[in-house]
Amino acid sequence: MNYLLKLSYDGTNYCGFQVQPNGRSVAAAFQDALEAVLGCRPDIKGCSRTDAGVHALGFMLNFHADTRIPAAKLPLALNQHLPPDIRALEARVVPDDFHARYAAHTKTYLYRIHNSPIDSPFAARYYTKVPGRLDADRMQQAAQYFVGKHDFLALCASGSSAAAHGDTVRTITACDVQRRGDDIDITVTADGYLYNMVRILAGTLCEAGAGRLAPEAVPGILASRERKNAGPTLAAKGLFLKSVDYDTPIE
Amino acid sequence: MNYLLKLSYDGTNYCGFQVQPNGRSVAAAFQDALEAVLGCRPDIKGCSRTDAGVHALGFMLNFHADTRIPAAKLPLALNQHLPPDIRALEARVVPDDFHARYAAHTKTYLYRIHNSPIDSPFAARYYTKVPGRLDADRMQQAAQYFVGKHDFLALCASGSSAAAHGDTVRTITACDVQRRGDDIDITVTADGYLYNMVRILAGTLCEAGAGRLAPEAVPGILASRERKNAGPTLAAKGLFLKSVDYDTPIE
Repeated sequence: MNYLLKLSYDGTNYCGFQVQPNGRSVAAAFQDALEAVLGCRPDIKGCSRTDAGVHALGFMLNFHADTRIPAAKLPLALNQHLPPDIRALEARVVPDDFHARYAAHTKTYLYRIHNSPIDSPFAARYYTKVPGRLDADRMQQAAQYFVGKHDFLALCASGSSAAAHGDTVRTITACDVQRRGDDIDITVTADGYLYNMVRILAGTLCEAGAGRLAPEAVPGILASRERKNAGPTLAAKGLFLKSVDYDTPIE
Repeated sequence: MNYLLKLSYDGTNYCGFQVQPNGRSVAAAFQDALEAVLGCRPDIKGCSRTDAGVHALGFMLNFHADTRIPAAKLPLALNQHLPPDIRALEARVVPDDFHARYAAHTKTYLYRIHNSPIDSPFAARYYTKVPGRLDADRMQQAAQYFVGKHDFLALCASGSSAAAHGDTVRTITACDVQRRGDDIDITVTADGYLYNMVRILAGTLCEAGAGRLAPEAVPGILASRERKNAGPTLAAKGLFLKSVDYDTPIE
C-alpha cells in the first residue's frame, strides 16, 4: 500500500527534512518511528526538501508499506514514537504510483516577521525580527509584481542545480502580505520554488516595506536575473511550509 | 526618581518573578541589567509574584534610582543587558509613593489551551494541551458565574497566606472564553487573585467544556469554599500576565 501522510514539525532542531550525512533530519526521525510501528524502514518521498531550521504546518510525504493498522489510525501510532517537535496529523491510502513531490500542483509557504522596535521574548523561534517599521501596504504592492510566470533566477541562492540547468521559470499564483499588530505574514503559493526563493522574496519585500525599494522596481529585478539586485535572504526560522495542493483530490 | 517599567518575559526558564533562594528569578535578572546600566541595584517592587514558568506580556514594576538616562530610553539600554527571554517595553517616571502592586486597580491574565486530538509541535512552551474536544460555549457560560464579588477560597491552592487570614474575597470584573481554531483563550480581569486562582479557574472551565461539569454548578462550587470541588490546577506554562490597570492613568 502507498500511504500519504501529513506532518507538522518545528524545524529548529533539525538539519531539514531530507536525510543528510551530518545532522538529525526530520525524515530519519520519521523513519525511526515507522520502524517502531511497522517493523520496517521504507523509503520516504517528501513533498520538498526544506532547509535546516524551516518549519512545517502541513508537510506531505508518502511511503510504501504493508500493515494491518488502518490508515486513519497511523498518525496516533506514529506519534507515540515521534519526538514532540514532529507530529503526524493525518494519513490515507493513495494510488500506488502517487508521489508526494511530483503529484504536487502547488505548495504554499508562510514567512513570519515580527516587526517591532523591541523584540518579543515569544518570537525567538518562529519569526524573523525586523526592528524598523515596515509598511505592509507597500510590501503588498511589491508582492503583486511577483505573481505570474516569471524567471526567478534573481531570487535563487547560488549553488542551485535548477539554476545550473537553466530551469528557473516558476509560476507564483498568489503572494500576499498581511499585518496583524506587530506581526507580518507573507504567504506565497507557487508551482515550484528555487533554492531559498521564499526567503529572498521575503527579504525583497522587506526592502520595499522599509522604503529602500520601490514596489515598481520588482519587475526590473526579475528581468535582471541577478541575485545581487534582490533583497537579503531572511532567516530559516521564519519560514513554514504551510500546505501542498494536489491535482487529484486527496480527501 | 521613581520609575515604572513594563516587562514582557518568557517564564519557562525562571522560578517566577520574585527573588527566591533557589533558582533564577526574573527580578534578579532585571536587577543585574539595572546594575549594568545604572551602577546600582535598587529594590524592585513587582505588580505581582507570578509562579515558576508563568509568562508575562505586560508585567509592571517600579524602582527608585537616579540616572541621567531619560525614562523613554531606559528600555533600550536595559535590553542590551537583559537575556533575550526578558524585554523591557516601556518606562516612565511616576510619583515617589507610587507602588506597582498597591496602585494596581485590576490585573488581567490570559490562559491558553491548545485543544486538539493531536498535539501541535508549536504549542509546547505556551499552551496547555487538552486532547479531548472542549465546548467553548459551555466554558463561556460557566465563566460568567465567576464574574462578580465572591469568596474564591474554592479556587485557592493550599498553603496560601490569604486563605490563612480569611482574606479570600475578590472581584472578577470580566471572564471570557474565546476559541480560535484549535486554540482556546481564557481572559480574566480581577482586583486581585488567590494562589493559583487563574489556573484552577481554567481547570474548572475545562471540566465544564468537557461536559463533566454543568455551568450552573459553579455557584455551588464557590459557595462550598472547598478546593476539592473545583477543577484541576492547569500547568503554569499556559498562563500569561497580560496587563495591569492603574487608577491613575499611566498612559
